Amino acid sequence: MTSVTSLFASVEADLELMTENLKNLVSARHPILFAAAEYLFGAGGKRLRPAIVLLAARATMPHQALSSYHRRLAEITEMIHTASLVHDDVLDESEVRRGVPTVHSRFNTRVAVLAGDFLFAQSSWYLANLDNLEVVKLLSRVIMDLAEGEIQQGLNRFDTSLSMDAYLEKSYCKTASLIANSSKSAGLLSRVSSQLAEDLYHYGRHLGLAFQIVDDILDFTASDEVLGKPAGSDLKSGNLTAPVLLALEEKPYLEKLIEREFAQTGDLEEAIALILESRGISRSRELAAQHSKAAIECLSNLPASEARQALIDIADYVLSRMY
Amino acid sequence: MTSVTSLFASVEADLELMTENLKNLVSARHPILFAAAEYLFGAGGKRLRPAIVLLAARATMPHQALSSYHRRLAEITEMIHTASLVHDDVLDESEVRRGVPTVHSRFNTRVAVLAGDFLFAQSSWYLANLDNLEVVKLLSRVIMDLAEGEIQQGLNRFDTSLSMDAYLEKSYCKTASLIANSSKSAGLLSRVSSQLAEDLYHYGRHLGLAFQIVDDILDFTASDEVLGKPAGSDLKSGNLTAPVLLALEEKPYLEKLIEREFAQTGDLEEAIALILESRGISRSRELAAQHSKAAIECLSNLPASEARQALIDIADYVLSRMY
Repeated sequence: MTSVTSLFASVEADLELMTENLKNLVSARHPILFAAAEYLFGAGGKRLRPAIVLLAARATMPHQALSSYHRRLAEITEMIHTASLVHDDVLDESEVRRGVPTVHSRFNTRVAVLAGDFLFAQSSWYLANLDNLEVVKLLSRVIMDLAEGEIQQGLNRFDTSLSMDAYLEKSYCKTASLIANSSKSAGLLSRVSSQLAEDLYHYGRHLGLAFQIVDDILDFTASDEVLGKPAGSDLKSGNLTAPVLLALEEKPYLEKLIEREFAQTGDLEEAIALILESRGISRSRELAAQHSKAAIECLSNLPASEARQALIDIADYVLSRMY
Repeated sequence: MTSVTSLFASVEADLELMTENLKNLVSARHPILFAAAEYLFGAGGKRLRPAIVLLAARATMPHQALSSYHRRLAEITEMIHTASLVHDDVLDESEVRRGVPTVHSRFNTRVAVLAGDFLFAQSSWYLANLDNLEVVKLLSRVIMDLAEGEIQQGLNRFDTSLSMDAYLEKSYCKTASLIANSSKSAGLLSRVSSQLAEDLYHYGRHLGLAFQIVDDILDFTASDEVLGKPAGSDLKSGNLTAPVLLALEEKPYLEKLIEREFAQTGDLEEAIALILESRGISRSRELAAQHSKAAIECLSNLPASEARQALIDIADYVLSRMY
């Protein structure tokens, strides 16, 4: 398996600069945020989202230097993502993310709420100052989608009648919307044609869905160490993902275990075993592969460049994680 | 004392419509938010901020109906205000606001974080769709000021060296920025001159400062019932306001009580007594009166109208609360 960061070689220096800027921005404000900044923008993060923005910028302006607007867009993307992670951890009462304690468990809920609000606030200020109303609309829509996705996820806990469409819609809101709209925004800031802007949107949308489906597969197939959190934790909290929904079509007893919310000893383990026995995992892998392939096809109108190749490699990498 | 809502007579129907819209918007999403919506936009709120927006809109377009953009701006203003209240209550661990339990104590922290995030997200989406980049910038700045004010307040707890300037800056961020920038935005949506837009900004800024200073006086002079929370609660939490900072100039022992964070029995009561004995309250009243007067002067370039008179009356009303 390739390391994802090796795919970012052509924008590595830009990502380093971004990370420094974000750490300084947060830590300058408050001693407690200073401590949180290392957790927020420290070693754990893969910086996939800003890397895609920077690569989309380079791929659409292959003969020009990155503009300050593109760099700012990458920062905004990472800030929105980080803010939503911090608040989601409060909402989900998660203790661990990426193998390290979450902000609200390491510090407390106050710091987590404050840090998230600060990042959302700063990102909307930066956003307004990109001076591009269309980009403001796209990223505002993302912030709304993130809240909407979190609401949907909360509403549908332990609901075995959840459809695959509803799961994909929630995954779009929570993961794909940010990648799709920030990729498109990178194109808009490069003044690409509206066709190419749509291509970038759909690249990000398919890639984000593939990424989320793979994450949901890994919740069942990876070890606690790889995940940085206990395996099966989505299922345990009632978050029913692709492998579960597809397994439910074959295993009626799984429905019963989920509907009693794993109340009896051994229920969760039995449910995980049923899912691993079913075709839920293999069909989810096929679904992720379809979205990854579709993502790559969306790049066909871009001129060949190192950055375009990196965007293709990212879509391949996402799939490679699932084996 | 006049009731503040009687000042809003000319926009009462508009405020009712706004409240219904906001309740429906929030409650449509989630059963738990449905329950929270009544707390958020129910009887307790005075709706001062959207009323000022609607009055500023009418005062700048006296011969035309309110535009849908103005109505939306009023909604955005109330949403931003409500979102920040809900998150501030989490940050301050307040149990009661306006005499009713806070969202996070009535429901829980999860609901409070989710409701606040949803309102911030929805407001930034509405904001982008006002299609006015200058207004987007002004209101994004407000959201950043609110986070900044909360950070400042947290940093300066029990710091007796806090200057009056720093207190006023924090009060601007937490209270006046929203009123100032939303008043100015109402003018911009009416396409007023840049002079009149600045006048509206400074009206809101002075009014917001007067309002905050009066609130800070009432924390010492009003009863628990009037406040809807225990008197002296700002002081107890180390939030040092105008009456305290001015009393510190006369009462050196007050500094000692604050610096030991009221650790000994009777410290808080003694501190309140020292403040009430000092000229802190009367000097704060003078300061509030100056800002109220300055707010009214900023309206001199507006044509005479019922709405302009209501804006003047609001500035008078704010002062009348403090006696």
